[in-house]
Amino acid sequence: MSFDTPLTRLLGIRHPVLLAPMDVVADAKLSAAVSAAGGLGLLGGGYGDREWLARELAAVSASQQPFGVGFITWSLRKQESLLDLALEYKPRAVMLSFGDPAGLVDRIHAAGSLAICQVQTLAMAREALAAGADVLVAQGAEAGGHGASRGLFTLLPEIVDASAGKVPVVAAGGIADGRGMAAALVLGASGVLVGTRFYASQESPAASAAKERICRAGGDDTVRSIVFDISRRNVWPAPFNGRCMRNGHTERWLGREVELMQNINAEAERYARARAAADFDVAAVIAGEAVGLVNEVLPAGEIVNRMVADAARRSAQG
Amino acid sequence: MSFDTPLTRLLGIRHPVLLAPMDVVADAKLSAAVSAAGGLGLLGGGYGDREWLARELAAVSASQQPFGVGFITWSLRKQESLLDLALEYKPRAVMLSFGDPAGLVDRIHAAGSLAICQVQTLAMAREALAAGADVLVAQGAEAGGHGASRGLFTLLPEIVDASAGKVPVVAAGGIADGRGMAAALVLGASGVLVGTRFYASQESPAASAAKERICRAGGDDTVRSIVFDISRRNVWPAPFNGRCMRNGHTERWLGREVELMQNINAEAERYARARAAADFDVAAVIAGEAVGLVNEVLPAGEIVNRMVADAARRSAQG
Repeated sequence: MSFDTPLTRLLGIRHPVLLAPMDVVADAKLSAAVSAAGGLGLLGGGYGDREWLARELAAVSASQQPFGVGFITWSLRKQESLLDLALEYKPRAVMLSFGDPAGLVDRIHAAGSLAICQVQTLAMAREALAAGADVLVAQGAEAGGHGASRGLFTLLPEIVDASAGKVPVVAAGGIADGRGMAAALVLGASGVLVGTRFYASQESPAASAAKERICRAGGDDTVRSIVFDISRRNVWPAPFNGRCMRNGHTERWLGREVELMQNINAEAERYARARAAADFDVAAVIAGEAVGLVNEVLPAGEIVNRMVADAARRSAQG
Repeated sequence: MSFDTPLTRLLGIRHPVLLAPMDVVADAKLSAAVSAAGGLGLLGGGYGDREWLARELAAVSASQQPFGVGFITWSLRKQESLLDLALEYKPRAVMLSFGDPAGLVDRIHAAGSLAICQVQTLAMAREALAAGADVLVAQGAEAGGHGASRGLFTLLPEIVDASAGKVPVVAAGGIADGRGMAAALVLGASGVLVGTRFYASQESPAASAAKERICRAGGDDTVRSIVFDISRRNVWPAPFNGRCMRNGHTERWLGREVELMQNINAEAERYARARAAADFDVAAVIAGEAVGLVNEVLPAGEIVNRMVADAARRSAQG
């Protein structure tokens, strides 16, 4: 069974399921596993660690699976040569999120790749369309990691309307199973982009303790804030903040962000130590509200297959 | 065409579309119009204006249409005799939102009505099930007016799972058309509760200028905060805040809530004058992200009919 959508046709993939390019977590192994199952893996280019990117590009390229690469736009602007590095490997697509993609899209096209632009508001969708995006990703506030405040239930159909059938729209944020995938398709999406569910996959390089926290948690157990950004000395430009699982650190500092900044030397050191030690009562597990829909660590391929099979069963168009 | 769901069977209605009991806006006329079209109108009991409630109960009762009544639980606790007043009119259901419904549900059952409990988190859903709710409404952060922070895309399926088929679950927040209704059904809902779309209906008693703002706005143009609550001297208990359309007043005070409180005498007077004058650059238009899906004022019955017809077309189960 498969879903034939404008997204699958454009990207040349079997299932309209994209791996969210989660910083560090979406590596070559996880990416290749999602692509091998018929979706499309997107490497998490993150904040631009050139060594990591070069290594993972070589590895995913060697896997013979289709792949893409995701970048944080405002961060990439400081180090645009990373885009050239990625394009040398002929990715099927480059995904840009968090910042105006104007100009970058043209460079992606010139190298023969497709440009996927993730947006969090209707205004950003219009900006990305004007920049020449081939695919829009509508990311709802349910998402883990960085994002903004609009909920997917309204953002998605509004962006579908704004795209007016010119480019496929992908739904992101809160989708972890076939129900979410089917609902996204009903709202006009041509596919889904999935993070948290793959974070807790067998192939994911995330710490076992983090995966276990995701499996145990309910969807009430996450929060959107800038506490973890402050704590790692990496506050993003407005309107972006980040969703992570609630823990001792978020409970301590939520609503006291100014005080946290005033104590940043000690707190940043404490936070860095906790990250190194996989102490997730201080370090953030960067996952979304979909934690409440994830109960076991599964192989990435099985996640794709179950999601697609269940979505088809629930969907008129499966 | 109709949707036969556990909700329609329980409430004895033709279409699984409920009118959100918007304070003052959901009056007898609008409620009866929604019910006449096959949905169920719920009067907006709001903060407990006895005179308003008595008048609207008498009017909706005279309409011969089925109806329900919605209350703000924490407010109703201060004036429980209003529940008795409502129950005298034999509403098909009473909806309780924002507070533990324990005890109140039993009184509703004793009077022969059904108890619909609206919740914003998984924890509140469990509380409402324990209290004996007959129907749960899962309200996402997309909703206009009071609510909390979780997005509907994850909250709804989690609450469907928590209810384990024992009670129907209704989706609320961000649903304004057939796409949203079909997506909610795919996610496991048995129906939808709709506010903003009916706010901008012909029967709605809201000011024309407010309806026009809704029709012109995009979904980026609303914000969730406590600015309007402070401004009308009515700050709600945590975790609730309220979504309204952005205007000069929200832009002036967002992030400066403490300062607003320190200037409350002058600001509350200014705000009250603006409400009386329908000056919506100061007074809040209390509407949700679904404003971006609403482009024209329509008769309530046509809203129901279009929503149901389009949902059926998009849905495997229509």
